[in-house]
Amino acid sequence: MEREGAFVEESELLKYGNAGGFARDLACAQAGDLALLVGPDRRWQILRLEPGQTAQTHRGVLAHDDLIGRPWGSTVLSHMGQPFLLLRPSLHDLILRLRRTTQIVYPKEAGYILLKMNIGPGCRVVEAGTGSGALTAVLAHAVRPNGRVYSYEIRPEMQHLARRNLERLGLADVVEFKERDIAQGFDETGVDAVFLDLPNPWDYLEQAYAALVNGGYLGSLLPTANQVTRLLAALESPKWGLVEVEEILLRPYKAVSARFRPEDRMVAHTGFLIFARALVE
Amino acid sequence: MEREGAFVEESELLKYGNAGGFARDLACAQAGDLALLVGPDRRWQILRLEPGQTAQTHRGVLAHDDLIGRPWGSTVLSHMGQPFLLLRPSLHDLILRLRRTTQIVYPKEAGYILLKMNIGPGCRVVEAGTGSGALTAVLAHAVRPNGRVYSYEIRPEMQHLARRNLERLGLADVVEFKERDIAQGFDETGVDAVFLDLPNPWDYLEQAYAALVNGGYLGSLLPTANQVTRLLAALESPKWGLVEVEEILLRPYKAVSARFRPEDRMVAHTGFLIFARALVE
Amino acid sequence: MEREGAFVEESELLKYGNAGGFARDLACAQAGDLALLVGPDRRWQILRLEPGQTAQTHRGVLAHDDLIGRPWGSTVLSHMGQPFLLLRPSLHDLILRLRRTTQIVYPKEAGYILLKMNIGPGCRVVEAGTGSGALTAVLAHAVRPNGRVYSYEIRPEMQHLARRNLERLGLADVVEFKERDIAQGFDETGVDAVFLDLPNPWDYLEQAYAALVNGGYLGSLLPTANQVTRLLAALESPKWGLVEVEEILLRPYKAVSARFRPEDRMVAHTGFLIFARALVE
Amino acid sequence: MEREGAFVEESELLKYGNAGGFARDLACAQAGDLALLVGPDRRWQILRLEPGQTAQTHRGVLAHDDLIGRPWGSTVLSHMGQPFLLLRPSLHDLILRLRRTTQIVYPKEAGYILLKMNIGPGCRVVEAGTGSGALTAVLAHAVRPNGRVYSYEIRPEMQHLARRNLERLGLADVVEFKERDIAQGFDETGVDAVFLDLPNPWDYLEQAYAALVNGGYLGSLLPTANQVTRLLAALESPKWGLVEVEEILLRPYKAVSARFRPEDRMVAHTGFLIFARALVE
Repeated sequence: MEREGAFVEESELLKYGNAGGFARDLACAQAGDLALLVGPDRRWQILRLEPGQTAQTHRGVLAHDDLIGRPWGSTVLSHMGQPFLLLRPSLHDLILRLRRTTQIVYPKEAGYILLKMNIGPGCRVVEAGTGSGALTAVLAHAVRPNGRVYSYEIRPEMQHLARRNLERLGLADVVEFKERDIAQGFDETGVDAVFLDLPNPWDYLEQAYAALVNGGYLGSLLPTANQVTRLLAALESPKWGLVEVEEILLRPYKAVSARFRPEDRMVAHTGFLIFARALVE
Repeated sequence: MEREGAFVEESELLKYGNAGGFARDLACAQAGDLALLVGPDRRWQILRLEPGQTAQTHRGVLAHDDLIGRPWGSTVLSHMGQPFLLLRPSLHDLILRLRRTTQIVYPKEAGYILLKMNIGPGCRVVEAGTGSGALTAVLAHAVRPNGRVYSYEIRPEMQHLARRNLERLGLADVVEFKERDIAQGFDETGVDAVFLDLPNPWDYLEQAYAALVNGGYLGSLLPTANQVTRLLAALESPKWGLVEVEEILLRPYKAVSARFRPEDRMVAHTGFLIFARALVE
Repeated sequence: MEREGAFVEESELLKYGNAGGFARDLACAQAGDLALLVGPDRRWQILRLEPGQTAQTHRGVLAHDDLIGRPWGSTVLSHMGQPFLLLRPSLHDLILRLRRTTQIVYPKEAGYILLKMNIGPGCRVVEAGTGSGALTAVLAHAVRPNGRVYSYEIRPEMQHLARRNLERLGLADVVEFKERDIAQGFDETGVDAVFLDLPNPWDYLEQAYAALVNGGYLGSLLPTANQVTRLLAALESPKWGLVEVEEILLRPYKAVSARFRPEDRMVAHTGFLIFARALVE
Repeated sequence: MEREGAFVEESELLKYGNAGGFARDLACAQAGDLALLVGPDRRWQILRLEPGQTAQTHRGVLAHDDLIGRPWGSTVLSHMGQPFLLLRPSLHDLILRLRRTTQIVYPKEAGYILLKMNIGPGCRVVEAGTGSGALTAVLAHAVRPNGRVYSYEIRPEMQHLARRNLERLGLADVVEFKERDIAQGFDETGVDAVFLDLPNPWDYLEQAYAALVNGGYLGSLLPTANQVTRLLAALESPKWGLVEVEEILLRPYKAVSARFRPEDRMVAHTGFLIFARALVE
């Protein structure tokens, strides 16, 4: 089995069955792996393990050579004696730390988008614009191995950044990047879903409709109510149906048994999610 | 490509390329397909299209024979002249209408669970208990084609229901159902994630730990604060780290351009999500 | 001391000091009092106690004569043996059960409006329109005994209803009802606060400005985002400053010690609160 | 009429009626007044105007002598030419800037507490502990002129701070401060409401019950779910009824007409509100 990405290689590493009881083999961090380092204050970073390198943290330095070969889930001490957890990063973690120059679609929205737009293995999905590639990564992860993401972006430097992010995540193989003004339309037809992640989606509804299979899913994420009302007006057409607007709020709690309570502050808004389905007129 | 489920077969149906411009072929509903029927008041039902059958609605009767052969996304009139949308159901829709005898994990939580626990194509996931199979379906959909869901349930009639639900959704092939008291432990080791969807997860942490790969993901969904504090106490152990508690709130809006506003009422609580990672002691 | 309202008469009834320890006299329900009856299923009603009358409930009948003379806080049995709590209603309870033909300002918003607009004893406040009088009642309660509420309403039948509601609550003495189209302006000047509880407040900003003391408070409650953006546009003027938009959400919990959790459903929206202050140009 | 507080003196200042039309007299800032200064970045401070003094801000210096005599609602320039709004502070503003050493009850909760516990002019209310006096101030403001707040606190330095805060706000005349361990009980009986603003209210329910009129209101504000379940257990007694737990969330919006949207971040938790009523056993 070929490695498909940085975050699904556990199976490769488990070469032996367990003898019995609750014992188990220990998968270990290897040179070239992406690693998540979490300090005692819960501050975390993601790094690619490379022999000879060092990781700088607010609680001391760690040598990559001390991390390579360690079982995932181990605690490692910095040169200041501070304990750090060594873990594989999830796609969730990786997205939050993408190199980016734009606002990104957050995991709380991304997971819901997948389910709401029925995106899974084998799906063909159009996305515009690519941005820093956060949603691209979630879509690519979900449609593998035999699906396809077509990601359009008009700004070359942005697409370049996204492409490198996807390569770093091992997800570039199911993505076709297209540097294009989507006013000219999409190349694809009959796609399962189109996600418009740009500030003026109402300008591209014809193009999205042309790309979608009949009954297919349209989605968008917009920060302001003004944009939403404008998109809703454009969707009041016989071409579109089942229009929905929703917001996802994530409320974090202090995970302390003796003092369980919501966190003092939270992210209060990332955007309004708009969904619709392409009808046959 | 073999048909894997009711909701990814669009590609099969698109037999011809598009001639050009914004024209397109129309995929049509066929006998045996699952269909979503949405009435003028947004009330909806899911049915399997069978020649000779009829669908009863509050706004009149529709003959399946009038639906079979129609393009998805069409509007069909009931015998009372009321317009109904004919659409493919999404996994999201299907889950909300599963035959069930238990509380289910809702899409707003399910999508987030996937991202947070890094569940995607190729993953091996343990779930207990199976319940009505809603989360089982989301997990199965996400790990296809080469992943695996091991779903444990102690109540035979429940597992029977879930098995039928998964078969109906075309997702049973990646699921292994096990009728078992998980106090005895799980058969699997080195799995990527364990989700404990039962009222007393603190009783099964040892078993979950034994099943997980080192660094693997534990998740649970609990309705009351009392349960959360009890689980948090049990997770205060060197075996577990990065413990988090979160809540997902979905706020629906009235999707009307001229009067955009939140809906009057919303679901205020389904449960608290708890996540942790298995450490090496 | 004259009785000023149904809900502040406790002091009248406490005629004797306590002898000592934790003993106390018991204030009793009297003919003419407003009473709150709460059944075993938490369903409640408000009634005025009148000798010879009966209260019909889903759990049986209670004779007013069995309630009159009972201490507040007593449990009384219906003819079916079901226990009912006999309590004085709060202004909060009374507002929720006002006779009404309009949407009302809810207590969660009303309490915040008082603090945000600095409304307390002695204040002079203009309100338009009166509606069913729910906010009028809260304002009147707060400005007593020497403040004043000027409540404008163009629909005579509405003002008639509100007037009767306020009389029933014993709060009419600090309210001046005016049946008027406020396009003509308000009679008052130098008032501390103006609350515009009508669908098009942007049409009356000049009138509100003229009525307010310099630096005074403007408030409004609007259900849709479209209305809010329109009001915000009108407030982008040197006459107004410190413009704020806020929303108050009330999340109810199941008050059960062993199963503490949020309620399943909640009111998700009543309206957006908009506040501003009148500046000197 | 005697001045009762810093924030209801508008009526004093309006010595002349308006000549007609929309003209009006301008109430002016005077030496000794509390003033709210709001800078161009919305940062604000509260100060007492004193001849010869200066106000330091991040955008330059303002001389109090330039503020005294100006109409409220005026724009004043700092020595750097930056515009500042000169306004009377509301009780809401004053509370948020109280000198404090403790967590305070926020206006979003305080306003709701007033309505829920039926606290208005003429009420007698017991509070423990006093803390920095924020809730004391709201209660005092609401019960004036003929009500009474009895505020208990065991820490002398805390009560000293609260007393000075209340004096500064001109509200001390309706408050009786008592330095006392409330385990010994309250001096008052037959009070309308008792608010327990301390971490272990379950230890003082007997004392609260003894102080309350029959049917009276108990309230508390607790940060953690653990405290709430403990208080709920103690309230499961025939002495208490209509127990409710609620949470108030304040969602702020960007007040910009062309880009109306919720703020990015918000306060996610201050505490759970618990209410109950004293029954007759």
